[in-house]
Amino acid sequence: MTTTVPALAAPAANQPLVRTTIELRTPGAHDVAIDIKFAGICHSDIHQARDEWGVGLFPMVPGHEIAGIVSAVGSDVTRYQVGDRVGVGCFVDSCRECVNCLAGEEQYCLKGEVGTYNDRNHDGSPTNGGYSTAIVVDENYVLGIPDGIELSEAAPLLCAGITLYSPLVNWEASPGKKVAILGMGGLGHMGVKIAHALGAEVTVLSQTLSKKEDGLRFGADHYYATSDPTTFTELENHFDLIVNTVAANLELEGYLKLLALDGTLVHVGIPTEPDSVKMVWLAAQRRSIAASKIGGIRQTQEMLDFCAAHGIGADIEIISVDQVNEAYERVIRSDVRYRFVIDVATFANETRADA
Amino acid sequence: MTTTVPALAAPAANQPLVRTTIELRTPGAHDVAIDIKFAGICHSDIHQARDEWGVGLFPMVPGHEIAGIVSAVGSDVTRYQVGDRVGVGCFVDSCRECVNCLAGEEQYCLKGEVGTYNDRNHDGSPTNGGYSTAIVVDENYVLGIPDGIELSEAAPLLCAGITLYSPLVNWEASPGKKVAILGMGGLGHMGVKIAHALGAEVTVLSQTLSKKEDGLRFGADHYYATSDPTTFTELENHFDLIVNTVAANLELEGYLKLLALDGTLVHVGIPTEPDSVKMVWLAAQRRSIAASKIGGIRQTQEMLDFCAAHGIGADIEIISVDQVNEAYERVIRSDVRYRFVIDVATFANETRADA
Repeated sequence: MTTTVPALAAPAANQPLVRTTIELRTPGAHDVAIDIKFAGICHSDIHQARDEWGVGLFPMVPGHEIAGIVSAVGSDVTRYQVGDRVGVGCFVDSCRECVNCLAGEEQYCLKGEVGTYNDRNHDGSPTNGGYSTAIVVDENYVLGIPDGIELSEAAPLLCAGITLYSPLVNWEASPGKKVAILGMGGLGHMGVKIAHALGAEVTVLSQTLSKKEDGLRFGADHYYATSDPTTFTELENHFDLIVNTVAANLELEGYLKLLALDGTLVHVGIPTEPDSVKMVWLAAQRRSIAASKIGGIRQTQEMLDFCAAHGIGADIEIISVDQVNEAYERVIRSDVRYRFVIDVATFANETRADA
Repeated sequence: MTTTVPALAAPAANQPLVRTTIELRTPGAHDVAIDIKFAGICHSDIHQARDEWGVGLFPMVPGHEIAGIVSAVGSDVTRYQVGDRVGVGCFVDSCRECVNCLAGEEQYCLKGEVGTYNDRNHDGSPTNGGYSTAIVVDENYVLGIPDGIELSEAAPLLCAGITLYSPLVNWEASPGKKVAILGMGGLGHMGVKIAHALGAEVTVLSQTLSKKEDGLRFGADHYYATSDPTTFTELENHFDLIVNTVAANLELEGYLKLLALDGTLVHVGIPTEPDSVKMVWLAAQRRSIAASKIGGIRQTQEMLDFCAAHGIGADIEIISVDQVNEAYERVIRSDVRYRFVIDVATFANETRADA
């Protein structure tokens, strides 16, 4: 038995998203049914809808920054009840057996976590994401959104927020540590807020100074332009941690040399092409290069609680369902401050067949 | 005032080493004069004598794995006295003021540590290494060699030993950790011994199984050939730490995939050409790539004490002064088990002008 709900889907790779309907499973014993209120637009939605990360499953309903309200729970659900404010992030299941799942690092499931969309559930059915009015998810993969955060501002935390929180905590951004956030987009602006709240001395490294005012407002102590060569001499051997949110191949030598002894450059923007790395750039100050993706369920909940306690949400532009295709183009042009969030209530607006 | 002593020097880049003499400074107030007993041959001696790492200072007396006996001390020396068993490693001075020197990480001195040879002292005079009968070094850059280790077997610890001990300790090789040593040469064989003594589960990854018996004798629990493709499937997602002693560009993808969640590949063999790295290889399991060089004076002393306590010395082939050029060729062919050490007493043998 299934329920039919409206959704926005890419019918095929590189096609504009169109209104459609999808079938949701009836909640099983451990499932939570969620009325989606807001869904963030992540750049990876665009990559996947355009087959830039390999061949996708179509029709594709993107969206893995989901915030809503529990509308029904299965008979054995203990974590949530109807009316709870909840979120869903980048995955909705995992093997639950491997060493990483058992360690609460389901995002590194050795059998492959089940993506919130563009993936298949263990029964083979395709998963559909947050560009819809509802979703059914196992309670173990649902997050609680504390009262302190608006649902609209919480939605982007489920991917952008945890993608920055996880490396900042894992590499110990804290008082006395010098942390740089490279890139001031959807990911970067969350990094500035979170690193500041963790007590680190925060520097933004952005291509230009055009977003400096915002950066300082988000909590940055310093703001440098990477288009200015003096940035690289002035900040040499300076940082304990650089979190790189830019998913493009950079000249890594310059950035690695900004790291002090034992410093780490963590990539959370993952370019598809290889980077060129001379080991002497690392050996010179025992530096490291790493890369990190989102976080496990436990850490994602910790992040939401942390953000609520520190009054942190994403800075967003709320759009209607019918503005998503236009928003995709603006994301590609970096023309958003700092995250588009779809108001799912706008599915109730007049349906446009050509949306 | 100076003292003249015999030495073995490369007169110019790519020239065979020849017997010569060098001038030593009269020990200053903080200096220790050392009668050298043994000097190890490190592959980097060859790189530098052949200008493979940039233009060298010639004539060049290589040698930074030095073990000997204190023969005289300056008036203000407190750490050592005549007759002490001592060693000198890869550097003989540093700025003593930068944040790294103050942290006891002089090998990362921000002004550049003073190399034991192929470098200049702060007064501009060239430094000369251990292929000689004596050396004068500031007491703060001299190590004590505990009674438990033969001087001949201690000499290689001053470079090969600390080069492995430092990353093994810094990345916490310990009981319960799975550690791989990549390469079973002069560096690698020290890595196996030290990682085993630190309590880690040790695997050797060597091109072939030809040194397997030695590896197990040194303390390895497992021994795999990297020429066998099944090694890379069998050990996928397995190691917490891989220390790569091979100074050549490897296909890093295969090795990175051997790392478990949060695992690190540390290079101590530093290829001169860049490596190609896809960040997704790291992101897949939050892996890191790092590189490390030798260790500070404090950690080097800690290493010597650790090795003495665990009965660890290098496995060596003792050679005479006049066998060094031949030994260089054998090092290049990896034809040494596992380190050549020059018996400096052989300077007293008949001098051969064509040595």
